[in-house]
Amino acid sequence: MLLYILYLIAIVAEAVTAALAAGRRSMDWVGVCLLGCITALGGGSARDIVLGHYPLTWVAHPNYLLLTGGAALLTIALARFMHHLHKLFLLLDAIGLVVFTVIGCNVALEMELPFVIVIASGMITGCVGGVLRDVLCNDIPLLFRSELYATVSVLTGIMYVSGLQLGFDHNIVMVVSLLSGLLLRLLALRFNWSMPKFIYSRDVH
Amino acid sequence: MLLYILYLIAIVAEAVTAALAAGRRSMDWVGVCLLGCITALGGGSARDIVLGHYPLTWVAHPNYLLLTGGAALLTIALARFMHHLHKLFLLLDAIGLVVFTVIGCNVALEMELPFVIVIASGMITGCVGGVLRDVLCNDIPLLFRSELYATVSVLTGIMYVSGLQLGFDHNIVMVVSLLSGLLLRLLALRFNWSMPKFIYSRDVH
Amino acid sequence: MLLYILYLIAIVAEAVTAALAAGRRSMDWVGVCLLGCITALGGGSARDIVLGHYPLTWVAHPNYLLLTGGAALLTIALARFMHHLHKLFLLLDAIGLVVFTVIGCNVALEMELPFVIVIASGMITGCVGGVLRDVLCNDIPLLFRSELYATVSVLTGIMYVSGLQLGFDHNIVMVVSLLSGLLLRLLALRFNWSMPKFIYSRDVH
Repeated sequence: MLLYILYLIAIVAEAVTAALAAGRRSMDWVGVCLLGCITALGGGSARDIVLGHYPLTWVAHPNYLLLTGGAALLTIALARFMHHLHKLFLLLDAIGLVVFTVIGCNVALEMELPFVIVIASGMITGCVGGVLRDVLCNDIPLLFRSELYATVSVLTGIMYVSGLQLGFDHNIVMVVSLLSGLLLRLLALRFNWSMPKFIYSRDVH
Repeated sequence: MLLYILYLIAIVAEAVTAALAAGRRSMDWVGVCLLGCITALGGGSARDIVLGHYPLTWVAHPNYLLLTGGAALLTIALARFMHHLHKLFLLLDAIGLVVFTVIGCNVALEMELPFVIVIASGMITGCVGGVLRDVLCNDIPLLFRSELYATVSVLTGIMYVSGLQLGFDHNIVMVVSLLSGLLLRLLALRFNWSMPKFIYSRDVH
Repeated sequence: MLLYILYLIAIVAEAVTAALAAGRRSMDWVGVCLLGCITALGGGSARDIVLGHYPLTWVAHPNYLLLTGGAALLTIALARFMHHLHKLFLLLDAIGLVVFTVIGCNVALEMELPFVIVIASGMITGCVGGVLRDVLCNDIPLLFRSELYATVSVLTGIMYVSGLQLGFDHNIVMVVSLLSGLLLRLLALRFNWSMPKFIYSRDVH
């Protein structure tokens, strides 16, 4: 139930940040709406397609499509106030990351897939939406270059699944994993933690 | 039957316009052929993958692959005459948009999916081919920035599905939706109608 | 069995070349690891999703995920020695292309799909990984512009499937197709063979 409410908050937050990204590229209202839906629901869709887990979430619950599309459109009207909420959206985006991760792990756990795939399922759910947003905006995905985004997702997933396998109470494991992942992400943002980069300048081909 | 003939015309038209886009980026013959197939058949493939509607159209009917690949290759030979046909191809592309939309709605209707998903299925079928073409050509998808393309698809779908739900004759609803959508698209092209843009220049991240 | 060993070599080689591509774009370690996995396993995943052939290879065999991710990470440590191995990696990449192609054909043959789709399945398996790498690195896919890459895959597939249909021994057909495809690819690299380009400079839209 808590997870469900957090999920709704998270997809709205993802749709709003995608709409702002669309606005920075002067997309039209339809583009804003589509980019919002794709970013918010793309991670879960990619996971379901990869795992063959049909129907996709938004096909079973079309309201999610209306919710995210509506949030993206509303962003256009409210954009002038958005920069005051900058920090709120960074927080909501971080909540989205860990919530999506836990939901993705749950889907793979229900399908009784092996540990590595459960973690991958969480990471795909948490991260692919942002990758799609960046590819459609013609950028190199931030995921591949930025602060601990995928790392937070993987660590949250490992903590969550390990906790369950060790037999701890489901709700406690969930809350602890979500909070730890969230804390790690916020610390990474605050202190600009990042993974080391791999810089290779020789031309191989 | 009419829809089937229009479908064949539409995939050929999409393959030809994709081949010209490939030529503007100096792709080789294989790239032209592949981009033609992906653009013409990508919308229906994306719809089928998203809805879990297997086998994909071109897997069940490999001739479509040969038809679109052949049309793309033929474009290379005939390119010097293509600019005389500029307006014909804009018309055929517009026909493709509304025909793909109606076919996409039909697939979702047969699967007894809810209204919103039927419209989304029509839009995915109508628009994703062009998005794939633009991503593979390393452009921001035109769909997100241009004149009423997705809008025409959504309105055509709404008209078609509403007409059916109101109990009108199937053929009449289809022809009226196709013609209205086509008219709207051609008017949008003629008078440069476009959706308002959302321009947002503050850097949030 | 031979095919299996060659497959393992091929996915490692693809992961390493993708890691070097990631290094040329200064991605962080997570990006290197992800790009390695996506490039090495993306072709087979795309084929399985398009054909509705579940579960995907790496979902059934999570070790492939660890192997390719590990190879990508190891590349970071060993990058300084990699340029000495430039030619070895071109060879391994060529082996990967033909091995992936034959495996892709086998999957479609087992599903009893028609000839054209079997060839397409081989080509998707052989080529899509590199396309994903290029799209995620924000390049126009090399596939659409370079030396006989897709062509080698298609010809290898045609030789393999035709040989089987003519009733020759499976192992002989496989080895002959692999070696012929490999030879063609290496000759194309050595002598800079390429498909003719289609250059079209008129602006249609």
